[in-house]
Amino acid sequence: MSHRTTSATSRLDRSLTSRLSSAIGSAPVRLALWDGSEYCPNGVVPVGTVLIKKRSALLKLLLAPELYFGEGYSAGDIEVEGNLIEMLDAIYRAGARQPRSRWFHVFLERWLTWVQANSLGGSRRNIHHHYDIGTSFYQLWLDPQLVYTCAYFKNPNDTLENAQIAKMDHVCRKLCLQPGVSVVEAGCGWGALALHMAKHYGAVVRAFNISRDQISYARRRAELEGLGSRVEFIEDDYRNLIGKHDAFVSVGMLEHVGLNRYKDFGAVIHRCLTKRGRGFIHFIGRNRPKMLSLWTRLRIFPGGYVPALRQALGLLEEWDFSVLDVENLRLHYAQTLQHWLQRYECSREKISEMFGPEFVRMWRLYLTGSIAAFRSGSMQLFQIAFARGSDNTIPWTRDHIYRPLDEKEPETKWIPAM
Amino acid sequence: MSHRTTSATSRLDRSLTSRLSSAIGSAPVRLALWDGSEYCPNGVVPVGTVLIKKRSALLKLLLAPELYFGEGYSAGDIEVEGNLIEMLDAIYRAGARQPRSRWFHVFLERWLTWVQANSLGGSRRNIHHHYDIGTSFYQLWLDPQLVYTCAYFKNPNDTLENAQIAKMDHVCRKLCLQPGVSVVEAGCGWGALALHMAKHYGAVVRAFNISRDQISYARRRAELEGLGSRVEFIEDDYRNLIGKHDAFVSVGMLEHVGLNRYKDFGAVIHRCLTKRGRGFIHFIGRNRPKMLSLWTRLRIFPGGYVPALRQALGLLEEWDFSVLDVENLRLHYAQTLQHWLQRYECSREKISEMFGPEFVRMWRLYLTGSIAAFRSGSMQLFQIAFARGSDNTIPWTRDHIYRPLDEKEPETKWIPAM
Repeated sequence: MSHRTTSATSRLDRSLTSRLSSAIGSAPVRLALWDGSEYCPNGVVPVGTVLIKKRSALLKLLLAPELYFGEGYSAGDIEVEGNLIEMLDAIYRAGARQPRSRWFHVFLERWLTWVQANSLGGSRRNIHHHYDIGTSFYQLWLDPQLVYTCAYFKNPNDTLENAQIAKMDHVCRKLCLQPGVSVVEAGCGWGALALHMAKHYGAVVRAFNISRDQISYARRRAELEGLGSRVEFIEDDYRNLIGKHDAFVSVGMLEHVGLNRYKDFGAVIHRCLTKRGRGFIHFIGRNRPKMLSLWTRLRIFPGGYVPALRQALGLLEEWDFSVLDVENLRLHYAQTLQHWLQRYECSREKISEMFGPEFVRMWRLYLTGSIAAFRSGSMQLFQIAFARGSDNTIPWTRDHIYRPLDEKEPETKWIPAM
Repeated sequence: MSHRTTSATSRLDRSLTSRLSSAIGSAPVRLALWDGSEYCPNGVVPVGTVLIKKRSALLKLLLAPELYFGEGYSAGDIEVEGNLIEMLDAIYRAGARQPRSRWFHVFLERWLTWVQANSLGGSRRNIHHHYDIGTSFYQLWLDPQLVYTCAYFKNPNDTLENAQIAKMDHVCRKLCLQPGVSVVEAGCGWGALALHMAKHYGAVVRAFNISRDQISYARRRAELEGLGSRVEFIEDDYRNLIGKHDAFVSVGMLEHVGLNRYKDFGAVIHRCLTKRGRGFIHFIGRNRPKMLSLWTRLRIFPGGYVPALRQALGLLEEWDFSVLDVENLRLHYAQTLQHWLQRYECSREKISEMFGPEFVRMWRLYLTGSIAAFRSGSMQLFQIAFARGSDNTIPWTRDHIYRPLDEKEPETKWIPAM
């Protein structure tokens, strides 16, 4: 990166900014300092400008860029001119380098891993941090059913409301739900999917969650909709799942399990699923292993880990589960998040009254950063359907997913030819 | 396992048979010896009887059961009464234990790994062993297009011919083929898929194979069908693939690559695929890692390795490819193999004239064993569609796979909402 100094600036600041720019890599981003000086890679049209308003912010950025960009942006010490999504997309695509201060990074990594460990108590604290900040907050920007996971847009122009319903149907169809089947759900959010399965597919559902706010909301909704006898919401950890069920489903919870607990998670699925049971997990994943950013773990998802697809398969392999179907809905999550962000921005004044302006900026960065991650391919959204390894009652094709709901299942049961 | 001695037999033979039966595990199989004595697990109805006709066969079975069952069955020293598929299915499901003579097993493993290594020359020898034994032999029991991989039965009652055409369409649709795209195929068999892509999808195909028989047959067919200008058949190793292509496809070749060469294979795909290219691999896999049986590697597929899905994903992960779609067609391969076996048995006299009775028995065991492996879940059939990690031109949904061919693609291009 070369620099164009448009105003007087100290030699030290120039040297620091130059080091910072090399950490950003080849991303077409302009850096601007408090004194008006600007730094921009040669021969590129920058997608945006990062304005560093204080020398202390510059120093912190050098120490741990991914952490202090979030901190500085939230505090208002760093501002972005231009489209934040496009700028983050460009940075992700350029491939951020290792932070300069490795010892500091390693220290933070270890410390976070330790304090945010997903023990039974730790998971409760981690989940509480994100999901128990008030349902009224999430009601401002999620769909009316409060589905806080990737939607399924049959057409990109679908509304978020319809896309969330389509997602729930997509999940139910992949699980081959039939009236009367018993389902256990690990991590049920505000209960939309559990209620959908009971209401539209006749399933009997036992849904687990350790977020107190979410569980009490879900229980109230079940009562209001007269589904209390078919859906049981249990405030407990996935590790305490009980009973044998025809289907296991988990949507958007694997990210909170932690890589070192996948073995436990697999054992739970194994324990809870009947011999001919169907399994389904939906989670944010990656193409290859990488830690979540320090900032995300510190401020947004304590204890979170987003696995490579290969790592997630490890938990099924251990128990001889057979993967039937994997679908990647990365662009659907980018679309879902854009809907959320749009609504979020419409409510920013209200949110500022609720939590203050720093919170507004912090969560804006989380939502925009997530859009950029899904757009750039830094993150993926995987749905995996699976069954026991030796179960021959598995679906013959994917017709059950794509057949219109009113069409009867044709006779395609597998009868060995000999 | 207890035993019922229905005739006089020596103490040594009893002890040997008892050891053998414990190696088979809990499979409901009766063992019978040359002298008429029989051994059967308590309280089960056996699915079949393994008749061991010589003491030397019994001794060899104890040394390396999976190897000498194949050898003895081929030689006629071991016979099976009852349905061979069901018996092998039961044995696979029971989960065979480690062979008793571990040192012998380890020695054979190492020796086979060494002599069958998939170097450029080694691969040529390994492929020659299986695929160059005469196209006229394969014509006796494959479909008319000689597609020697798992078919796709939209309905289990479909004919093999139609199911193989449906499979080729399934592959082309997953690859989003359009007229004019350039495709490279690694391991093209007798050329059916390459020709199908050119003829029905307007693709320009470069297809690689190191089986001399198959390549010359494929070239003749291309000339006969007037496709010589659109399909180039190249007798060369996948490691020598050249050029940049819009699509990479490999059907039934990964099994011949060898686990320690996956890195090379991934590098080849990376080298050959354009930025917006589509990739597709179709292969026999497993739920968890396990070696192919010694017998299969010695007699049927030298140098073969059937990977766990997780292992196959490793080769894509290395190059930041993004998995879009995984489908498991295990039962379709069982069905395909049953068609093959049925035709094979109809031609057994002719095959016996060509290669002798021992060959007939050897290949019967290979085909029946494969049926049992896919039925019991010991083997799986995976299709993986993938793209570059940051490519946003990937299909929005799976509509392109399941839409009727004459239906136009709807306008569902992804336009970010903000």
